Amino acid sequence: MKDELRLLTEELLAQGSEDDLNVLHHILLGLKGKNEGYYSSYVGAILNMKKEITPSSCSVKVPITKALNNSLDIVHGGMTATILDTAMGTLANLLAPEGYGAVTSQLTIHYLLPVQGEEMAAEAHIIHQGNKTMVIEGVIFSPEGKRLAHATGTFYLLTLP
Amino acid sequence: MKDELRLLTEELLAQGSEDDLNVLHHILLGLKGKNEGYYSSYVGAILNMKKEITPSSCSVKVPITKALNNSLDIVHGGMTATILDTAMGTLANLLAPEGYGAVTSQLTIHYLLPVQGEEMAAEAHIIHQGNKTMVIEGVIFSPEGKRLAHATGTFYLLTLP
Amino acid sequence: MKDELRLLTEELLAQGSEDDLNVLHHILLGLKGKNEGYYSSYVGAILNMKKEITPSSCSVKVPITKALNNSLDIVHGGMTATILDTAMGTLANLLAPEGYGAVTSQLTIHYLLPVQGEEMAAEAHIIHQGNKTMVIEGVIFSPEGKRLAHATGTFYLLTLP
Amino acid sequence: MKDELRLLTEELLAQGSEDDLNVLHHILLGLKGKNEGYYSSYVGAILNMKKEITPSSCSVKVPITKALNNSLDIVHGGMTATILDTAMGTLANLLAPEGYGAVTSQLTIHYLLPVQGEEMAAEAHIIHQGNKTMVIEGVIFSPEGKRLAHATGTFYLLTLP
Repeated sequence: MKDELRLLTEELLAQGSEDDLNVLHHILLGLKGKNEGYYSSYVGAILNMKKEITPSSCSVKVPITKALNNSLDIVHGGMTATILDTAMGTLANLLAPEGYGAVTSQLTIHYLLPVQGEEMAAEAHIIHQGNKTMVIEGVIFSPEGKRLAHATGTFYLLTLP
Repeated sequence: MKDELRLLTEELLAQGSEDDLNVLHHILLGLKGKNEGYYSSYVGAILNMKKEITPSSCSVKVPITKALNNSLDIVHGGMTATILDTAMGTLANLLAPEGYGAVTSQLTIHYLLPVQGEEMAAEAHIIHQGNKTMVIEGVIFSPEGKRLAHATGTFYLLTLP
Repeated sequence: MKDELRLLTEELLAQGSEDDLNVLHHILLGLKGKNEGYYSSYVGAILNMKKEITPSSCSVKVPITKALNNSLDIVHGGMTATILDTAMGTLANLLAPEGYGAVTSQLTIHYLLPVQGEEMAAEAHIIHQGNKTMVIEGVIFSPEGKRLAHATGTFYLLTLP
Repeated sequence: MKDELRLLTEELLAQGSEDDLNVLHHILLGLKGKNEGYYSSYVGAILNMKKEITPSSCSVKVPITKALNNSLDIVHGGMTATILDTAMGTLANLLAPEGYGAVTSQLTIHYLLPVQGEEMAAEAHIIHQGNKTMVIEGVIFSPEGKRLAHATGTFYLLTLP
């Protein structure tokens, strides 16, 4: 396995475009961070997600790189969804009673403006905290504070094993 | 840059867990595929997406690996959204009149069952084709044909530059 | 009370427009139907809803009258929502296990085409039946079979008192 | 026609329950208000809607009566949707540029708590104002200020005839 990984890396170094190498760099730094305990998931590692948590909100920041782009070379709506769902789901788990976790049961996203620039940030706030479900709002902001996407989601409480 | 990439790869080979190396393997194969023109985007490359297109539908298949997981070590809702949005958006662009592209303006996802197994597949179908917008349905199926997630989205037509 | 109702009716007969009288006619027939047990709710009575139920689907038909219109004199989106939610909620209650009822916890509607003509019909089908929630699809059809609106909703199971 | 309306009214006065007569009273007052120009639509008249408008928001208040109830004798989700869509759509039309109107193209509602009490109020605020669409938020409040339902919707701009 290790020799194959070295070989694949060398092939990419030889033939890859500058974008290819930048994306690989970004991902290798993420995997290193995951290995060192800085990221709690591979999705977080690959996207280089930074989370900030307060007792009633959660924000997630992600550098905007080519790794987020779709075939039209603009940020993939699924990546925007990933960052929103991370912020919203983290808040849901934070607010869940002891012994409970929360999973996304429904998510609605409005895409408002193209996601551009160096970084995007998602912020999540609680709309309703029930006994069995929570409804949470998430907003993606540009560095200048413009709303780029808006989401609401239902999170379902589960007893943790 | 290349030396730094070699160094980061060697560090990961030395210290990474088996999961870390599997995820790296998966991603390097994807980036190689991107470089060789097999994948049309980095998101597609990182997730090793296979697309199949017919005149009226689009399906996307993705191997389920640790690279898709969130902090609870289950498939991240954002990854499910990414695969749905890819199938739905590809269909929207396929159905767009000549000279037009289509972007996601709104997406609603119902998460039905945990995504497990070796592969997940999204299938997209048109619900309504209007002059300015399209409404498209996407469903994630397990290899056994169970519905795992269901989405509807609005896609907005734009004149291509 | 009865004298006041007679007075109000006479006032409307004296001063009302033809549309006013048609709407009143429609509603009085509905209230009579409710009193005779034909309609199970006032909303159903006021809108003159006809329900048809099979073991796996529910359809609701409503005559299109001025009573459904908004300030722009076209069918109010909330009326479309009402007919969709009735068909979908009726199916949810039909499919609920004995001793359980189902209430709407979330509803997403895509408005596709203007609702016109003599009648609109909603049809509901199950997408996913879980232990605690159901996801149901509803579609509004024109008499010619065109899709005018499309909805998905989450219905939550509750133990009946 | 007029004689038939008198006959239907007398039948209801003779046989109707107290609830039947209260609902009729409510509706006759609404139709009288419509005839006098107080309500701009039959839906508004039947529900006795009061609208308040500021340059950047719209609120709609509705008395809670049996006329709003579904077969389970609780407020019909479609009635909640109607009041939300009215507040949101009114704001959309208020904010539309001169010569343009706005129609609902998509609506997502989260039902948070049962709607009870004497009155419900919807408040609408703008989330995003684009060139072709607007995204608007609507919230239903109880008289005590509790959130009972939360909605977001996309409104599409149309040139007025």
